[in-house]
Amino acid sequence: MSQYLNYAIQLAQMVEGQTGLNPPVGAVVVNRGRIVGIGAHLKKGDKHAEVQALDMAKDNAKGGTIYISLEPCTHFGSTPPCVNKIIEAGINRVVYAVKDTTLPSNGDSILQEAGIDVEFRHQPDAENLYKDFFITKRQSVPMVTVKVSCSLDGKQATDTGESKWITNKLVKKDVFKLRHHHDAVLTGSGTLNADNPQYTTRIEEGKNPIKVILAQNGNIDFNLDIFKNTNTPIWIYTQNEALVTDIEHVEIIQLTNCSVENIMKNLYEKGIGRLLVEAGPTVTSEFLQSNYTNKLIIYYAPKIIGGSGKYQFFHTDKIIDLSEVPQFEIVDSQMLEQNLKLELRKK
Amino acid sequence: MSQYLNYAIQLAQMVEGQTGLNPPVGAVVVNRGRIVGIGAHLKKGDKHAEVQALDMAKDNAKGGTIYISLEPCTHFGSTPPCVNKIIEAGINRVVYAVKDTTLPSNGDSILQEAGIDVEFRHQPDAENLYKDFFITKRQSVPMVTVKVSCSLDGKQATDTGESKWITNKLVKKDVFKLRHHHDAVLTGSGTLNADNPQYTTRIEEGKNPIKVILAQNGNIDFNLDIFKNTNTPIWIYTQNEALVTDIEHVEIIQLTNCSVENIMKNLYEKGIGRLLVEAGPTVTSEFLQSNYTNKLIIYYAPKIIGGSGKYQFFHTDKIIDLSEVPQFEIVDSQMLEQNLKLELRKK
Repeated sequence: MSQYLNYAIQLAQMVEGQTGLNPPVGAVVVNRGRIVGIGAHLKKGDKHAEVQALDMAKDNAKGGTIYISLEPCTHFGSTPPCVNKIIEAGINRVVYAVKDTTLPSNGDSILQEAGIDVEFRHQPDAENLYKDFFITKRQSVPMVTVKVSCSLDGKQATDTGESKWITNKLVKKDVFKLRHHHDAVLTGSGTLNADNPQYTTRIEEGKNPIKVILAQNGNIDFNLDIFKNTNTPIWIYTQNEALVTDIEHVEIIQLTNCSVENIMKNLYEKGIGRLLVEAGPTVTSEFLQSNYTNKLIIYYAPKIIGGSGKYQFFHTDKIIDLSEVPQFEIVDSQMLEQNLKLELRKK
Repeated sequence: MSQYLNYAIQLAQMVEGQTGLNPPVGAVVVNRGRIVGIGAHLKKGDKHAEVQALDMAKDNAKGGTIYISLEPCTHFGSTPPCVNKIIEAGINRVVYAVKDTTLPSNGDSILQEAGIDVEFRHQPDAENLYKDFFITKRQSVPMVTVKVSCSLDGKQATDTGESKWITNKLVKKDVFKLRHHHDAVLTGSGTLNADNPQYTTRIEEGKNPIKVILAQNGNIDFNLDIFKNTNTPIWIYTQNEALVTDIEHVEIIQLTNCSVENIMKNLYEKGIGRLLVEAGPTVTSEFLQSNYTNKLIIYYAPKIIGGSGKYQFFHTDKIIDLSEVPQFEIVDSQMLEQNLKLELRKK
């Protein structure tokens, strides 16, 4: 493991969640044993990480090595191809950690023809950074993280709807971080009307995600707290053609069918690369049953609450054959004081 | 702990060992919850970290916050004051992790008079990065790390001088990293003549430190391997006026008294901010007895070798009273397979 390649991956992790439909990427330019430039892709449409790092390095790039978390691009997108910039800068060697399987992979040969050594050095850390990105980009849908807070017996609330007991302070902080690293947060109108939540990011200079409300029937109370914060756009998906509002930061999107698939495609078109689902049992279960969930994060409170299970986080109308239930693998577990956080990836 | 301040500290750590007499510094500019610029001080004389980050951010800096691992400077050194640049960029808030106690600390008030919020947010991680820097800068001497490889009974070699058994591969790699993060490595002519070492950094694109040889009496064999590598300058300190060479990358520095103190002051004048001492018992013991050792790193091999202790790493002519022996505190311990690494700081 090269320390410089490791630095490039660290830089990518710093900008995770702020690059929209683009992947987070970091780059480090090294010459004669010294770092001469560092860069990260800060925003879709902005300079790529390689360009930032080469711009910082200027003439010191000549004869140097560039370490990149992801294979450099060869296409004209919002910016010119990075391989051109690398060749023009006089770089001698390119080392990258992950191949971009969503792009025509002719970068190696373009660089090699220009006399540049190219090394693809596989890094598991970096692969985890891009795995879901590759999958969802091909489908033109956002990466989806479903977040659930529940009791040890899998319920988001008691039968009467009480749920305030579920999360401690550390979990709340962790959820703020989650929101910061996503472009948008989605919930259902049911949860909205019942809990009156705000979905803000109360960490220092946290990025507030766009709020997406799924309101199939158009049952929305515009006096709820969520509509009072005018800093972040709110998008409402509905099949109800009569639903209108004159609130400036609220956009109503009419779909003939508010299926998870249709909403996903529409969100991606609107620039959402990373979506966090924070909803009640109905919407949560819809996403968990769909093919559009990449990650599941469960916060368990140390309680068993019983009852009929009206608010169990996963319930389905049909009985699913055990061979067909959604399969996940646990990638991380963490104690947050008395709450347990489990991080799972869809298999 | 702010994540952005943490990122600034990570950036500083990436350039540790390449800034000579200057401290390693990292900076991150944030605006409306997004990183808009990142920077690090890459080399003494180059732009400071704040300037790199603000240059990357351009107009996006306006109204933003800059997070810096170290208090921004207010003086004209090799570059103009960073506080001016911060004010010109239209930054709203400055958050830094460590106060620079070696500079007149009027930065806060200059920034505040310009209407900028300033917050000093103490970070233990960052403090460890600068503690020794502050001490040595005031004395105009390099930060000194003494490295020792020895048996469990404190010997660098058997009485016959055998020492090849001492370190395993992981230790060798770790020592290469140590060298990379120092400006120069110092040894004595005795070790050089006995072991014929090269003091190179065999990690990918590692920076080879300048080699400093202490040869009080001028007893140097210029046919040794160390003189064959012409990539890195070699400086020889001696009291012997007759010692000369025409090897191009070798500089002979005559001092009337080759005391540790005189060599330290001279090295600092020549731009050495971080010195690694890798020597035999005599030079090692001299440094450990002096006031110029900041860090001691010991690699223990799982052997007890006995003998008379001719090569014990710390031996002194005088018996030192127990109340006056050099005091250290262990800051880290790590197993490198069967070798134990201890990291200590002078108290």
